[in-house]
Formats: sequence, structure tokens, C-alpha cells
Amino acid sequence: MSNQKDEKYFQNISHRERAIFEGAITMGAMFHQFVGTPVNKKSVKSLERAIKDAMELQPCIDKVEVKIDLEMIFDFQSEYEYVSLTGEMLDVTVVSSYHDRKAISRMHYVEELQYPLMYVKKVF
Amino acid sequence: MSNQKDEKYFQNISHRERAIFEGAITMGAMFHQFVGTPVNKKSVKSLERAIKDAMELQPCIDKVEVKIDLEMIFDFQSEYEYVSLTGEMLDVTVVSSYHDRKAISRMHYVEELQYPLMYVKKVF
Amino acid sequence: MSNQKDEKYFQNISHRERAIFEGAITMGAMFHQFVGTPVNKKSVKSLERAIKDAMELQPCIDKVEVKIDLEMIFDFQSEYEYVSLTGEMLDVTVVSSYHDRKAISRMHYVEELQYPLMYVKKVF
Amino acid sequence: MSNQKDEKYFQNISHRERAIFEGAITMGAMFHQFVGTPVNKKSVKSLERAIKDAMELQPCIDKVEVKIDLEMIFDFQSEYEYVSLTGEMLDVTVVSSYHDRKAISRMHYVEELQYPLMYVKKVF
Repeated sequence: MSNQKDEKYFQNISHRERAIFEGAITMGAMFHQFVGTPVNKKSVKSLERAIKDAMELQPCIDKVEVKIDLEMIFDFQSEYEYVSLTGEMLDVTVVSSYHDRKAISRMHYVEELQYPLMYVKKVF
Repeated sequence: MSNQKDEKYFQNISHRERAIFEGAITMGAMFHQFVGTPVNKKSVKSLERAIKDAMELQPCIDKVEVKIDLEMIFDFQSEYEYVSLTGEMLDVTVVSSYHDRKAISRMHYVEELQYPLMYVKKVF
Repeated sequence: MSNQKDEKYFQNISHRERAIFEGAITMGAMFHQFVGTPVNKKSVKSLERAIKDAMELQPCIDKVEVKIDLEMIFDFQSEYEYVSLTGEMLDVTVVSSYHDRKAISRMHYVEELQYPLMYVKKVF
Repeated sequence: MSNQKDEKYFQNISHRERAIFEGAITMGAMFHQFVGTPVNKKSVKSLERAIKDAMELQPCIDKVEVKIDLEMIFDFQSEYEYVSLTGEMLDVTVVSSYHDRKAISRMHYVEELQYPLMYVKKVF
């Protein structure tokens, strides 16, 4: 979703760059909105679904795919049988587009960086 | 869900008070975890579901019911056809219990206070 | 801070219980508002301060003390030289009161529970 | 802050695009981390400071400026003398850079869109 009225605010960047820009906003939004949410095996599907549905509402977002790593949840399980969602558990792909251009961004934990990296997988 | 091991940390309060305490934590958690989430008519059901499922994992929580006010969403709709979830839109009931005692807490927007009030509806 | 107008919503609980209730809300709020925030040694003081100042605004809260464990931050440091705040790093004390009663709640990581436990330290 | 090791993940985009990408992540992160935080005139400075300090830690971010609109806070004040931070109150500028390229992104409430718009003010 996007709209005509906001075009004048984006004169400084290309269509390709706007697709990248909007995908990145959604990445940052997703992480900081949902990290900290209690989650376990029973609730993981509804959390993945809600993250997907919420993030697909953001401007210029075509599609969001969310995978929360259950194995990681299992290892960290406390006495209370759930964990707080962390960035390390998330594998998220965001497809954003603006006019004729499309960007695919992804976030997942990268072992060598010890960090849930957000990057652009493809632009076309 | 609760457990035996944590009992020694709760010597200072009664079972009734622990039920109240845990219900209140979940109320504060729910509000501050999810306020800001993009939502519209298409996504409201999955968001309600995820809030319910996540909050029911917290210690001593039996049941959570979540209603997001669609009318309010409609009024505030921007050009982008979604809104950020606010406390004013939420009507949430939390049933918490500890041993033989149970508390029902509720949060909803109270007109005369101009505030989404969290309070204890009933304890038994 | 509290006010007269809301008293009728709290007929079901005692003054002591309201102090406990409001302290617990602030605990849950604090955790789920700030977990996920980027933090390192340079920023830890301003984050502690902002958490304290924000949480002291909540109804019936007299005082909030926030300590973020720098050692833990150090260990988990990634290539990017900061970490996302987790509950495990937090040690927070909340003093809440209602009329003549006061509750002191605390959250900190409890080794034997492998969990950042919120509990009531004292009520008087 | 950035680092050498992550370069291989960014082969698909130019330096200019990476500057835009990282600025946008920080915009989305900032909004969804802090919206919902209790704030009033007493706490606004420490909240602005904490947002700035936290967001300046993110990869490739040179500088963040945060202004929370006090007038708006005043109008919406409830009985409890504070409000929950919303996107509408925020005016945030993020300077991001990657190698030789720099992007200035901004978010503020745009009347004609009835929306707190995030956009790229300048790239060079």
C-alpha cells in the first residue's frame, strides 16, 4: 500500500531506493515492536501470523514472511515454559515495492557476526 | 502457569494478593508490548489472537480476552488505511489465579477519566 | 500520582492491594516497553534515567530505581558493539503507594529460576 | 558504526542505498521501540536523550535528533498528568552513512497525510 499524496516527499530518491527504504523501515519496526513478547510452542503460530499481518499493512509492503525458531526457544526455556522473543530467534523476509521496483529484505541471525543482521537480498 | 520454586519469593503477600499482582503485571506487559502495532480491519483478529496467546503464557494467568475496538480504528484511519494500536482501542480482561484465589482484572478506556484504566473487577 | 475520580473502580480491593496492583502494572510496563532497546556502556545511563522518569509517571508510583547490568552487556557484545536490552540485564525496584499503604516490588534475574522474576519485597 | 565483516551481505546495493537502508531501519526501530512510553513535561528531556543515545548505536548511524512535541502532550493530558508517546508527537532526524555516502531521513507528523511520515530529506 502506498499513495499518491506522499510522492512529493520522495523526490530525492529513486523508485528502487524507495522500495529499499520502505522495506528497511518495516524491518526495524518488526524487530522493535515484537521483541520481548512471551512465546512458546503453543503460541508461536499466532505470533508469526500477527507479525506478518501487522507488517504487511505498512506503506509499500507487498508481503512479509516470519519464522520464529522453535529449537532456540526450546533451549532457552525457563522454569515458566516460555521465553521472551529475541532477534536471534527471528527469520523474516520483507518484500517491498514502489512503482516498477521491488526489494527483498531479510533478517536472520548470522553466526559469524553474532548478530541478527538485516540486509537486502535482492532488488529488481 | 506458576511453579513451586518461586514460592519463597512471595512470602510477603497472600494468595489473593499474588493473584492480583500477576494479573497486573500482565496488564502492564500487554499494553506496552503491543501499543504501536499497525492494525486495521484485516489484521485485527490475528492481533487479538496473538495478544491473547502471548499473555496467557505469563505466570499465574488462566485466561486473557482481548477486544480491539474497530469503530475507533475506522475514525482515525489515515491515508494509509491502518492505524497504530493505542490503549484507547483496547478492552482486555485477564483472569489470574494462585492456589485457591482468583482475580479478574480489566483494562478499557474510561470516558470520565480520559484514560484506559486498569482495575480489578473481582477477586474470589 | 493517583486521583480521586478513579476510586470507585477500586472498591473490590484494599489500599494495600491497590499499592501492590499498581506496582505490578509498572513492572510489566517497564519490561515490555524497553526490552529490545539498543544499549552499551555509553548509553546505559541515559536509558536507566529514561526508564526511571517514564515509570515514575504511572499512577500511584512514588519511586523507580533502575540498574542495567553492564557486565552482562560486555559479555554479549556483538561485532556492532551494543546489545539489545533483555530482562536478564535489569534490576528494577518500584515503590508504589495508595493512601496509607506502600509496596516495594522488585525485578531481577534469579539464577535458580533462570528467569527475571518480579516479586513483592515488602508491603507496609 | 559498521564493520568490514558484513560487507558481503550488501553486494546487491550501492553505498548510497546502504546509507538509506540503515537510516530507515533506525526510523522504524525508534518508532516501535518507544511509542507507548509514558511522558510529560518533567520526563520529556530524558526520553528524548535516551531515544537519541540508543538509536545512535545502530549500524551506520552518525547522529539522531529527537524532538517530542510538548504542546501536543499538553492538549491530550489525561487526569493522570501524562500521556503515552505516539508517532504524532515525534520529530526525528537520522543521519546515516556508509563509506562516502550519507543520508538524512526524517519523521514528523504531516498534516495533509494525517500520518507521521518517514522520508529521505537528502542524500549526498
